[in-house]
Amino acid sequence: AEPAFGLATDDGLFEMNIRGRLYTDYITVSDSDGNFSQSGTEFRTARLGIEGKAWKDTKYKFEIEVDGNDVNVKDAYMQFKTSMGSITAGQFKTPNSLDEQTSSRHISFLERASITDAFGFARQTGIMWSNGDSNYTAKLGVFKGSTTDSGSGDTTIAGRVTYGDKMDGGKWLVGGSFRDRSSDGQFRYRQRPHVHLSDRFVNTDRIGNGDDFFYGVEGAIQYGSFYSSAEYGILNAKEASVSNPGSDAKLHGGYIDIGYFVTGESRTLKTDKGAWDRPKVSNPVYNGGMGALAVTARYDTLDLTGDGIYGGEMDTWIIGLNWYLNRHSRIVVNYSNSSIDGAFDVSANGADGKNSVDAFGVRFQVDW
Amino acid sequence: AEPAFGLATDDGLFEMNIRGRLYTDYITVSDSDGNFSQSGTEFRTARLGIEGKAWKDTKYKFEIEVDGNDVNVKDAYMQFKTSMGSITAGQFKTPNSLDEQTSSRHISFLERASITDAFGFARQTGIMWSNGDSNYTAKLGVFKGSTTDSGSGDTTIAGRVTYGDKMDGGKWLVGGSFRDRSSDGQFRYRQRPHVHLSDRFVNTDRIGNGDDFFYGVEGAIQYGSFYSSAEYGILNAKEASVSNPGSDAKLHGGYIDIGYFVTGESRTLKTDKGAWDRPKVSNPVYNGGMGALAVTARYDTLDLTGDGIYGGEMDTWIIGLNWYLNRHSRIVVNYSNSSIDGAFDVSANGADGKNSVDAFGVRFQVDW
Amino acid sequence: AEPAFGLATDDGLFEMNIRGRLYTDYITVSDSDGNFSQSGTEFRTARLGIEGKAWKDTKYKFEIEVDGNDVNVKDAYMQFKTSMGSITAGQFKTPNSLDEQTSSRHISFLERASITDAFGFARQTGIMWSNGDSNYTAKLGVFKGSTTDSGSGDTTIAGRVTYGDKMDGGKWLVGGSFRDRSSDGQFRYRQRPHVHLSDRFVNTDRIGNGDDFFYGVEGAIQYGSFYSSAEYGILNAKEASVSNPGSDAKLHGGYIDIGYFVTGESRTLKTDKGAWDRPKVSNPVYNGGMGALAVTARYDTLDLTGDGIYGGEMDTWIIGLNWYLNRHSRIVVNYSNSSIDGAFDVSANGADGKNSVDAFGVRFQVDW
Repeated sequence: AEPAFGLATDDGLFEMNIRGRLYTDYITVSDSDGNFSQSGTEFRTARLGIEGKAWKDTKYKFEIEVDGNDVNVKDAYMQFKTSMGSITAGQFKTPNSLDEQTSSRHISFLERASITDAFGFARQTGIMWSNGDSNYTAKLGVFKGSTTDSGSGDTTIAGRVTYGDKMDGGKWLVGGSFRDRSSDGQFRYRQRPHVHLSDRFVNTDRIGNGDDFFYGVEGAIQYGSFYSSAEYGILNAKEASVSNPGSDAKLHGGYIDIGYFVTGESRTLKTDKGAWDRPKVSNPVYNGGMGALAVTARYDTLDLTGDGIYGGEMDTWIIGLNWYLNRHSRIVVNYSNSSIDGAFDVSANGADGKNSVDAFGVRFQVDW
Repeated sequence: AEPAFGLATDDGLFEMNIRGRLYTDYITVSDSDGNFSQSGTEFRTARLGIEGKAWKDTKYKFEIEVDGNDVNVKDAYMQFKTSMGSITAGQFKTPNSLDEQTSSRHISFLERASITDAFGFARQTGIMWSNGDSNYTAKLGVFKGSTTDSGSGDTTIAGRVTYGDKMDGGKWLVGGSFRDRSSDGQFRYRQRPHVHLSDRFVNTDRIGNGDDFFYGVEGAIQYGSFYSSAEYGILNAKEASVSNPGSDAKLHGGYIDIGYFVTGESRTLKTDKGAWDRPKVSNPVYNGGMGALAVTARYDTLDLTGDGIYGGEMDTWIIGLNWYLNRHSRIVVNYSNSSIDGAFDVSANGADGKNSVDAFGVRFQVDW
Repeated sequence: AEPAFGLATDDGLFEMNIRGRLYTDYITVSDSDGNFSQSGTEFRTARLGIEGKAWKDTKYKFEIEVDGNDVNVKDAYMQFKTSMGSITAGQFKTPNSLDEQTSSRHISFLERASITDAFGFARQTGIMWSNGDSNYTAKLGVFKGSTTDSGSGDTTIAGRVTYGDKMDGGKWLVGGSFRDRSSDGQFRYRQRPHVHLSDRFVNTDRIGNGDDFFYGVEGAIQYGSFYSSAEYGILNAKEASVSNPGSDAKLHGGYIDIGYFVTGESRTLKTDKGAWDRPKVSNPVYNGGMGALAVTARYDTLDLTGDGIYGGEMDTWIIGLNWYLNRHSRIVVNYSNSSIDGAFDVSANGADGKNSVDAFGVRFQVDW
């Protein structure tokens, strides 16, 4: 009963799966400078989607997210499988970062690592080649226009490779990725503390000539009930340097985290996908069990300063609990403290550019 | 074949049901003062949703409504069943009013009672405990923030109990509910005549200190093909009194209605849900039958005046027909006359605050 | 396995089908006057829907399209089948034009004929009677209000009849339709070149007294792997004449196209629907075949000039390829050249009113 539910014809030509996720968050957040304080609830994610095969080798996925009164298209693509790899056309994420490639249903904390938002990892419209086996994944995509109704001009090229294997009592994975963006406009790099219902405290504002280049490395390990992952990435904002006009500003960041299932389960590391997946829950609550409980901790850093850029540095400690009632339902509790330094936004961080933000969040998460 | 269609795994762990409803209305409405006249069509409700079990004891529901070019999230929650009752987290209605708790698919008229909109019964984000058996229901919820992206400050507490039983030839139900709201802003209390495609003729505008308290009683009876329900509720708008500054303004309203299935069916009163449900149709049109036909009448009253508040009083007579082609399709015809008195909106009701509104509506309704 | 997937109860009373379509376009377009040039990607169509039977003789359909952050309701109706024909109530297309009645999934080019948009063939809210058999279709509808939240005043009456039959080696179809619109406002008639991601070069702007009358004829033939269709229609814009005030301006247009499946398949002409349908694919790519490949060509003309109206004339040649990987996936490639003449929009077409637009487009299309 554990694999998720789907519809299929007996001949395997046709398949359809209705997917959805609903995260209800309660958040309270405040800063030590006394400039910002908020508590409340929100649907962090309310999403419906459909994926399947419209005849065997042609997959499709179409997912929409409701955000207030708006709707955003998330994954929306068709994918042809060939003997030389798969071709994906439509809107989907650029292949970057383990934390970004891992579904938000399966990440270890409420929010992803700082670099994923700060460096603008997102879905774009394009075409991508991908290949892999049980050990490796390789992806290379070209994206044109970053919105659903793009005019012209923006081009992104991105690629990622991962390699991993089983080992005694677990699995490991290493990988790397790059992304090259050229745009008519300028980019800004900014990030919230580790809850969504918060203002942003670090922000470069729009800088550079509209081009940037990201490259990063990743690693993950699962050993029994213990797991850990880490990433580090550098982004060169082209011609963004203020102290040395015409040369690049180098922004960077990363994280290292650990987790441990006190109830004995394992986090699932998929070396054939290059991503984390949902754990198996040994004693789900519906069987009278305790569910699966993991304790988690992460150190996350983001440095948006240097070369005359004062976007700010944000160093965050997060501790948390993931309580899986069953494979598809969990309650996430996170507490985080972010130290901010060198941030130019005076109204948020004062003239000294320093601040400290405490955030607490609880999420009720279900997906199907 | 009568229970609605769903997907489930054989072990009962997983269940998924795709739900939707579509109401196409044709409305014509005009007032006797000659200030307002409108006729036209609209999708009163166009909704798609999904509900199910993501493993046995964890239910979910996610429903969106399309309104023009916008989308609104309606029910969106997860629910855990425990031996001590159920816990629901997400967005759902505060537990108030029989007419509000009854799905719009199963209400007896085009629109619900005046008090339900006027007093702002609506979905909020929160957490609720509920319990019950075949005779009683009990619900108590705490809600924080009334929108999907709430800032902070608003808190609502609400509860409802109902009790009912079978009797010779039918069923009965009595109940009561309360709701306590505290808000940073102010509330306004207002209502349309009994069609949606109309302006509002009674309206307090924003009054009071942002807190209010509602309490109400309800009763319903089904006896053979005859049915009737009634509600009465009072809302104390805190510190809203104009004639006696600092004390509350008391608004109130209610209704009594009757219905009769000339084709012999019965309206379904669910004492285990505390709500009306869809009738069984003895001779559906698809079997060459006449379907089920009910004649209905309601007297509805809403008083938004008193203590120096001149929101207006609206007393409405509605007569109608419900023609069920089958369990999931019906055509609703309503004619209503609303008498308005003591309403301050001069442009709508003239200097005398009196008006009279005639409304006629036809609805083509299907749900699945 | 070829008929699309659906859910149904064994007794045939209930049926539900989840439908969707996703078209990802890459477009490049430019004009010879040098006033407009654009290239980029967009989701031309991203749609999810559900259709079924909510008990046997009552069909429903509800389809939404995501367009940027907005959602539009497309088909949304319920339909009762009686012995005297079907009654459809809700929002759906007025019954006009073979190209418009053919689903965009099955049209032969990226976009429909110029007259369909220029003359405003669209979904409206109303009620329609329809009947037919394997040879003929007849439809007559009355529509009130053209939007989901219409005020009042607008009324449209439209009807269409088609007749067709088998012949040696193929099928043929002829038909005609009319549409009579009365509106409080004025209509404008305008059209893009044959890609969606383009400005409009011909445009009458708002003219006339808000009433218009369209009538048109249609024909189609399928003979082996060859197919062809043609339409011609005239629109009388009431009291729009500038040269002869008080009388009508006559706008007109049409097309003729051909197509040929080099891989031997046939385009499906449904005489019982009065529309084209998807082809059967003999050797789908998932079986190691080549899929189905059709070469296509169309001449399309639209004349928005005359009687003192200078909306412009646009004559377009389109050539294209339709490559069906399987019945539900295709890649469409179109190149078109449009000659514009007598168009008053000086910023687009210069003082001489002449221009020429080249457009190239590729579409990745999947539906389920």
